[in-house]
Amino acid sequence: MGTQRTLKLLIEYDGTLFHGWQVQASDRTVQGELEHAFETITATRTHIQGAGRTDAGVHALGQVASLRTCHEIGSRELRRGLNALSGPDVSVLGIEEAPAGFCARRWATGKLYRYRILNAEEGSPLRRTTHLHVVRPLDLDAMARAAACLEGRHDFSAFRAADCDREDPVLDVDSCRVIGIGDEVHIEVRAPAFLKNMVRIIAGTLLMAGKGRLAPDAVGEVLASRDRRNAGPTAPPHGLVLVEVYYGSRASAATSSME
Amino acid sequence: MGTQRTLKLLIEYDGTLFHGWQVQASDRTVQGELEHAFETITATRTHIQGAGRTDAGVHALGQVASLRTCHEIGSRELRRGLNALSGPDVSVLGIEEAPAGFCARRWATGKLYRYRILNAEEGSPLRRTTHLHVVRPLDLDAMARAAACLEGRHDFSAFRAADCDREDPVLDVDSCRVIGIGDEVHIEVRAPAFLKNMVRIIAGTLLMAGKGRLAPDAVGEVLASRDRRNAGPTAPPHGLVLVEVYYGSRASAATSSME
Repeated sequence: MGTQRTLKLLIEYDGTLFHGWQVQASDRTVQGELEHAFETITATRTHIQGAGRTDAGVHALGQVASLRTCHEIGSRELRRGLNALSGPDVSVLGIEEAPAGFCARRWATGKLYRYRILNAEEGSPLRRTTHLHVVRPLDLDAMARAAACLEGRHDFSAFRAADCDREDPVLDVDSCRVIGIGDEVHIEVRAPAFLKNMVRIIAGTLLMAGKGRLAPDAVGEVLASRDRRNAGPTAPPHGLVLVEVYYGSRASAATSSME
Repeated sequence: MGTQRTLKLLIEYDGTLFHGWQVQASDRTVQGELEHAFETITATRTHIQGAGRTDAGVHALGQVASLRTCHEIGSRELRRGLNALSGPDVSVLGIEEAPAGFCARRWATGKLYRYRILNAEEGSPLRRTTHLHVVRPLDLDAMARAAACLEGRHDFSAFRAADCDREDPVLDVDSCRVIGIGDEVHIEVRAPAFLKNMVRIIAGTLLMAGKGRLAPDAVGEVLASRDRRNAGPTAPPHGLVLVEVYYGSRASAATSSME
């Protein structure tokens, strides 16, 4: 055992069989699986703090987490051990030494989420766990105009789950984009912080605009109403993926490269 | 019941939980699942002939199949019924009326297979059922040179399974390409016909070249030896996908568009 170190982990997971990121008493979670593997490897316990608490069924290409340990295990050895002991649906892609005090959640300056929709007559078996299937042809222009209403600083009370515990519903959305790629439509939302279910409610609302059930400009009124009932339904979790977590210059002053 | 019709089906499937395309006595297969659904819908039986018999675990983005029926069910209704009754890991993307005598297997003029490799230190949970994970950095130039040796007309005896039942091992390979895309390497093989396990043995052999275990030019000697033991191992099925089946002008003279 040596002095305390802070480690930064980059993690990918297929959320299908996880009950989300955060440790729960009995259900399988990503955090729980990694903390358990850490304990098996080092015979010490640690708290693995994720940058974002993804819901059950939500995926991550670039979740970031932090932990503190006095164990001297090498980053590479720890990465290999965690991957050997956790299921094939989670993978630690890299571990680096982080500055003292680094916290994946508090130090994050922004996160990018992507919601993927397959817009085709029939479903795609090979994309069924990662894309929401929508049969009706979507009006991407309408979706893009609706999305533009959400950019900037707004009170997002209409776009959060009833049990969201964040005090302040006023947030800045850096960008909210609608991208057509072949038979897919991607909704990308980047913001410094999110409310519970916010991206999935945004996706559900933009889908209403895309289906002609909500005028794109009406999204401004939905925001102004601060009433959840005026926004669209919460889109299913499997279309959502946490793509990337951003950090300022403070966090990038790491002492070694990703292993 | 009316006159006999021939239908052409375009099919996508996730091969993970199938024991391949072809009907088997007890195991779940794509053909078996679709034939069973057809019987449930029409109360008549039919043989659904696939263009290619994919192995257990192999996927398809564009499998083509044909069937004959005297039932008057509409193409659109049949498609919807088949998709409602078969599992979420198979989807009939389209059905069209085909010329009398059309056979998905015999009329095919070529097929395109893709073998996908994730070439990265750690595995990708979201690609674990569709990509072979290879840790060692691959030499794409060597793989491409080895692949070029396979193009053209050759005796592919060294590249077929022991139980391959095709009489003539001499085949034309239209193209065999190695494509690097980000952290992935794709091997694409297009040919009018294939031997059993041929693409997977090609992938296993090109991987040996990519790892420096086989000189690229030695692939010509492997071909000339006609000895399976000189080629590489059969790469696992989950990296392989049947991308497209090609037909000449005869088959495209269909009487209606895909429904």
